[in-house]
Amino acid sequence: MSAELHVRTARTEALLRRLVRRDADAAVRKLVSGTPPADIAAAMEHLTAGEQQRLYRCLDDRDYAAEVLAHLSVVATREVTKNMSEDAVVELLARMDPDDATDIVGALHDELRIRVLAELSDDETGEEVRSLLAWPPETAGGIMSPQVFVMPDDASCGQAIAALQAKHEDLENIYYIYLTDDHGRLLGVTSLRSLLTHPPKTKLTAIMVPDPISVGPSQDQEEVARIVARYDLLAVPVVDSERRILGIVTVDDVVDVIRAEAVEDMMLMAGVSRPQQEQSVLRQAAFRAGWLFATIGGGILAAEIIGLYEATLASMAVLAGFIPVIMGMGGNVGIQSATLAVRGLATGQVQIGGVGPFLWQEARVGALLGLGFALLLGLYGVARFPGQPLLGVSLAASILLAIASAGIIGAILPVAFQRAGADPAIATGPFVTTLVDLLGIVIYFNVARLLLGL
Amino acid sequence: MSAELHVRTARTEALLRRLVRRDADAAVRKLVSGTPPADIAAAMEHLTAGEQQRLYRCLDDRDYAAEVLAHLSVVATREVTKNMSEDAVVELLARMDPDDATDIVGALHDELRIRVLAELSDDETGEEVRSLLAWPPETAGGIMSPQVFVMPDDASCGQAIAALQAKHEDLENIYYIYLTDDHGRLLGVTSLRSLLTHPPKTKLTAIMVPDPISVGPSQDQEEVARIVARYDLLAVPVVDSERRILGIVTVDDVVDVIRAEAVEDMMLMAGVSRPQQEQSVLRQAAFRAGWLFATIGGGILAAEIIGLYEATLASMAVLAGFIPVIMGMGGNVGIQSATLAVRGLATGQVQIGGVGPFLWQEARVGALLGLGFALLLGLYGVARFPGQPLLGVSLAASILLAIASAGIIGAILPVAFQRAGADPAIATGPFVTTLVDLLGIVIYFNVARLLLGL
Repeated sequence: MSAELHVRTARTEALLRRLVRRDADAAVRKLVSGTPPADIAAAMEHLTAGEQQRLYRCLDDRDYAAEVLAHLSVVATREVTKNMSEDAVVELLARMDPDDATDIVGALHDELRIRVLAELSDDETGEEVRSLLAWPPETAGGIMSPQVFVMPDDASCGQAIAALQAKHEDLENIYYIYLTDDHGRLLGVTSLRSLLTHPPKTKLTAIMVPDPISVGPSQDQEEVARIVARYDLLAVPVVDSERRILGIVTVDDVVDVIRAEAVEDMMLMAGVSRPQQEQSVLRQAAFRAGWLFATIGGGILAAEIIGLYEATLASMAVLAGFIPVIMGMGGNVGIQSATLAVRGLATGQVQIGGVGPFLWQEARVGALLGLGFALLLGLYGVARFPGQPLLGVSLAASILLAIASAGIIGAILPVAFQRAGADPAIATGPFVTTLVDLLGIVIYFNVARLLLGL
Repeated sequence: MSAELHVRTARTEALLRRLVRRDADAAVRKLVSGTPPADIAAAMEHLTAGEQQRLYRCLDDRDYAAEVLAHLSVVATREVTKNMSEDAVVELLARMDPDDATDIVGALHDELRIRVLAELSDDETGEEVRSLLAWPPETAGGIMSPQVFVMPDDASCGQAIAALQAKHEDLENIYYIYLTDDHGRLLGVTSLRSLLTHPPKTKLTAIMVPDPISVGPSQDQEEVARIVARYDLLAVPVVDSERRILGIVTVDDVVDVIRAEAVEDMMLMAGVSRPQQEQSVLRQAAFRAGWLFATIGGGILAAEIIGLYEATLASMAVLAGFIPVIMGMGGNVGIQSATLAVRGLATGQVQIGGVGPFLWQEARVGALLGLGFALLLGLYGVARFPGQPLLGVSLAASILLAIASAGIIGAILPVAFQRAGADPAIATGPFVTTLVDLLGIVIYFNVARLLLGL
């Protein structure tokens, strides 16, 4: 199977939708049987709620159905389970890894969740799900799997292999073997590979890596992801304050975390709320308003400053038309420089001890951009208002100064924030934009007054 | 070692810098010996070029030095290797995985790279590096490792274990065992785990998963990452058109790709260039100008439209001051809605077949935000210009209409783009902003003319 993932998913999706709409259940069953569950889940995300429910009812194999469910988004999970009985949900949960089951329980409608939790009460999955639900969802505890392959510290390679063979069905993802003492405290770790390449009688303590990297259960998932990425791990153990092992976070969950956090960053940059939470309209508006308050504050301040130049404006109303373009260009160049500064500081490409080269580079790029767009806007101004050539010159000079200063301010502000111990990312948002906007207005009107003699 | 990664890295970094500045080489060596190479590399990113070179010279153990180098950014790699001889570089490369060595070669200064490639000519590493350099850096071929653990299709579990024991040192990361036919074509895959849990005489073909998921060498790395993420793989084989196995892409490289792509998306949203490439000032300006052209085009269009209302403006110059706030608020609300729409379409939370609920939600959020900020701006207007209460009312009505329409336009445009087969992400940028800005101006002046009788 050579994978042109996009094409394949789109084709599966189109075909599925057609079949589901036609109520062609037999054909749906046949298509499903040849498709990996992850692909069915991806295709389902693009169907309507009704189509999702109809399709899901065609998944006869309960293991397959459980795997599809584990891959669905929160919203789709809620739709698909809406009309299920608690018994049906519990049966599916029992076929999943406990960390996936916990995510599903978290996604259920409130009423169904309560009934499912009551139903789950006695068996092993129920206990694991409840213990995982105790941790906030975005912590190591919230994303860990409690199923860890642990051996006592006096065991040998042969005993570990025997244990592995006995537990065949139980443990889905075994990457490492963890060694614990009598109190369940983590002593060391070894790999499947090491088991294979040492004689069966070798003690595990002889081949273990002692004192392995671990995380605490309340550590933020983003921090956990950073650790797994930095040390190229396949899994990291989660331990309590006594170093007793509680679970492991595996690399596939870390991949999901990194993808989710990237989305979250993008949403936060636009001032919208976290994507996975379903919120009321009022709450969404309230979250988005926070970011807009800065905009309206800056806007009112701009109005006040423009008001200072009312006499200039009254004597030449055409000037008003170019306020947006001067502010817009300055604002965008400022955000570009600030984005580069924030990323550079984060990756180390901009070094706090030696920001000189970066500022010098941004100053030159800003000057170059300013010159280019000054020429463009100046020519437009002269051509558009041929009777007032000085208006064109004034526009050119304003945009040159506005862009060049915006580039430098955008580059300096995040560095200054970092030096002051604040988060430099904050500087990319309202601060740079507002400062650059207001400076642009002041430059614009003063240049106009000077050149046009207003 | 309980990991508070940030704190630990910051402490290591501060200590390292102090020691390096004091030329306390003995103390540096002691600190280094107790620290994982990845941590030293992370700390080095925040030192100046001179400090990086001095520190790197303290890394006596060549294996350790190679591992630090493999973790450094492109910029730091270039600095650290600047004054090295080609022999020294080649010695380090020989101790790395070929895919890491290839990245280092790509990061070297041009002159040094040529000398290193000449020096590498004969040995195995050289051959592997050269074959990897043939693929573009952001493809499966560019990030794959050519070191794959392959067994012939007639081998047994016991033979595979024996081969694994013999190759002990050579293969860094073994996740899966790939089976090939006489022509090197990929037939199937099995896991270390399966080797352990089956009798040694079992044929590998009996326990293999046939026809495993694979990628082509020129497939984009982002696509490869998506496949590894979707199917929860630890590695994916790279095969040519004849299905001959060329290498594998491992999950740790995929994690790096996902992190890099997230950064790249963020940079592209601000219209700045890819972060890892060192470009001339002229090229950087040219790249950033592309995005700014849309802004200046929209700005000139706005100036033209404002020009249509010159008479209105001349009779009431104070109106000009509020142009930026009407445009700014509309633009931001539009971007918020568009961001939600783009993400929703990508994750499937917004379904192309049933966008009704999403649009209805955005319409209500927009109306709510419009009402809130209309009240705010209206009260400000009335308080600020008590002689002209209708100015305040006019501001309130304008911002209400501008915000409400922006919310709907921002939500609809990405959906329309998707339906037309275009990338909806493009709609979040210049399209939404320009459309919403211009509409805001038209609303503003017409409301003012109507209410104020201008």
